Amino acid sequence: MAKTMKRRKAPPKFSRQEYEARIERARALMAEAKLDAILVTAQPNLPYFSGAELPIAWESPTRPWHLLVPRTREPVAIIPYSGEREWRETSWIGDLRMWRSPNPENEGLDIIAKSILDLPRVHGRVGFELGLESRLIMAPGDLRRVREMIRPVEMADCAVLMAKLRFVKSKAEHAHQRHICQIVSDAFADLPKLFKAGMVDADLLRALQADILLRGADKTPYMVIGSGKGGYDSTSMGPIGRKIGKGDLFQIDTGSRWGFYYSDFCRNYSVGKPSDEARRAYDTLWRATEAGIKAARPGATSSDLFRAQAKVIQGAGYAVNDIGRMGHGLGRNLTEPPSNKLGDDTVLAENATVTIEPSLAFGRGKTMVHEENLIVTPAGGKLLTTRAPREMWVLRG
Amino acid sequence: MAKTMKRRKAPPKFSRQEYEARIERARALMAEAKLDAILVTAQPNLPYFSGAELPIAWESPTRPWHLLVPRTREPVAIIPYSGEREWRETSWIGDLRMWRSPNPENEGLDIIAKSILDLPRVHGRVGFELGLESRLIMAPGDLRRVREMIRPVEMADCAVLMAKLRFVKSKAEHAHQRHICQIVSDAFADLPKLFKAGMVDADLLRALQADILLRGADKTPYMVIGSGKGGYDSTSMGPIGRKIGKGDLFQIDTGSRWGFYYSDFCRNYSVGKPSDEARRAYDTLWRATEAGIKAARPGATSSDLFRAQAKVIQGAGYAVNDIGRMGHGLGRNLTEPPSNKLGDDTVLAENATVTIEPSLAFGRGKTMVHEENLIVTPAGGKLLTTRAPREMWVLRG
Repeated sequence: MAKTMKRRKAPPKFSRQEYEARIERARALMAEAKLDAILVTAQPNLPYFSGAELPIAWESPTRPWHLLVPRTREPVAIIPYSGEREWRETSWIGDLRMWRSPNPENEGLDIIAKSILDLPRVHGRVGFELGLESRLIMAPGDLRRVREMIRPVEMADCAVLMAKLRFVKSKAEHAHQRHICQIVSDAFADLPKLFKAGMVDADLLRALQADILLRGADKTPYMVIGSGKGGYDSTSMGPIGRKIGKGDLFQIDTGSRWGFYYSDFCRNYSVGKPSDEARRAYDTLWRATEAGIKAARPGATSSDLFRAQAKVIQGAGYAVNDIGRMGHGLGRNLTEPPSNKLGDDTVLAENATVTIEPSLAFGRGKTMVHEENLIVTPAGGKLLTTRAPREMWVLRG
Repeated sequence: MAKTMKRRKAPPKFSRQEYEARIERARALMAEAKLDAILVTAQPNLPYFSGAELPIAWESPTRPWHLLVPRTREPVAIIPYSGEREWRETSWIGDLRMWRSPNPENEGLDIIAKSILDLPRVHGRVGFELGLESRLIMAPGDLRRVREMIRPVEMADCAVLMAKLRFVKSKAEHAHQRHICQIVSDAFADLPKLFKAGMVDADLLRALQADILLRGADKTPYMVIGSGKGGYDSTSMGPIGRKIGKGDLFQIDTGSRWGFYYSDFCRNYSVGKPSDEARRAYDTLWRATEAGIKAARPGATSSDLFRAQAKVIQGAGYAVNDIGRMGHGLGRNLTEPPSNKLGDDTVLAENATVTIEPSLAFGRGKTMVHEENLIVTPAGGKLLTTRAPREMWVLRG
């Protein structure tokens, strides 16, 4: 089932020029935000600049890893000695300052502080991952110690800066995103070959994960399923050991990854012919997605994307689902800012990538969701995914 | 290749009694630490008490999830409305306090603060995930706001408490760990059936990940490979696109997961007959592992486990590898405290689970690592894994 053409390759590295361009853009934003430097630790941010691919750093919480990007000097990696080999193999950044870890008493904090205090001081402020959706790869207590150790330099936020920076993608990033979106699109289209009526949900997810890997993905960190007679009532739950059979309707949503870039979309399936109410819900969401895709132009806002989708859903007489948003940014995390919701007035820039993700409630306690991934262009959203079929996939019961 | 007996099941839930016993143990530790409550957010901690299985919470950084466990009142979940369905399906905890997320201005902070301020105040201190290997599922800036909002209650650390609590496992937890360790042991033993000389490392890892999933694992979040002529020089690197052929020696290390419990061990393979120096390194590490297994008795310390392994390695004339430790705790994270290293004098308790992970340097810039997972018992370590073969696996070149 796996296509040989898509296998046999480790994801390509980005060029050194691309990393340097990212750093230059970051420096311009640092100047605006009055920051002398930023210190990043999280999986989306540290490799975004450095290229360092460190599976151990993201899966084991023992050893923290840090990258200091000054506004006027070269970047510095502050990492454990145990990762030197992996760093040098995967990153173009050669200024490594290292300590022997694990050392819970001092996981590189003195090196972080000295590196910051040695920088030329213009604004006296350094950005850390503090705000908007930040997930720090450092113990919060250690962050607090660093705050004291770098005085009089002020610890400021760089999460908003990083979100803005990462939202707009390069051609090479689009190629990464398209690659994983296409692998998953193909796997969804071939799901009928994997499915057997009576299968337990967990086994269906295992088979689909394996298929996605064998088609060339690196990981399938996120895969959830909702299933039920005539419809499902959950859009983000893991398998619960339920058997799927005739009369069931289910959706699978997966965040799969290639070269550290994610896809994030779902598909709906009916075992046997779907009911009229399910078909009407599907048709409405298909059209709401279409409206969201058309609206994804530079200058529109995230809340415009919400409104375009909501108009179709409400126009068909449904209530908009209350999960808080209908899509989001996409890149090195499964979900990234902004949120397509009322009140998020982030302006879409050309080449940003987003998801369009309408959902609605129907029937007795049922829900349904659709999702596509796309690039913002002046002609509207350019799909990274293969568009969901106009009518729901029907599996043999 | 996948064994049908191991498929067809979603991981069983723990009993309500087990969750309640965990909370009672936590309360005893809270009393010792003079805490009125703890607030946990991280993947290992929140479901440890609640059973809540929330794939979206661990993969998407948008919406934080919190569990407040008071010393004298019932636990309270502080979660987004969007997760209510998933929470109620998977957790026995019914006191939910919810807010509409995403809402970056206030992601449930007022509810957290009110819930804490409403508690009976004995010590006036509440534990948060601040120290030792903590990875907070909340923006650090929001944690700081909570610190102010709960005054005069003091924000203290609960990371050491949680590490102590989770280190010792129940029989049901051992069963989870044994299940995933056996799935991966079987997959490693059958790797010769997957391997073809000339394969790119990334494709070998994809095939092995798919095999582990189809044998019944839920996820393979961590899988790294080191390969090279006559030996490898890295123990924690992702695939780099290298072809593996005759004369190569490689190791694969994986952290795979079932029911949110991890295995973490590696195996070594030689394509064609290994060199004498590689065989001698392997023999030494096999014996060092054996010494570590024997030493894993209640009352011994983590540093004793280091010394037992180091003695064999140094006795054979090798230097101990400088990666900082030779094994660690194991459970709901790939690696957990304590570290088997000099200076970590954590006392091993009966039924704790640990890894034994000796490594050494040999030849010209080569390294080698072995690893097993085991339960601490009065008779020494009881293996969760199938012991690595006495001599290295040899694959056809």
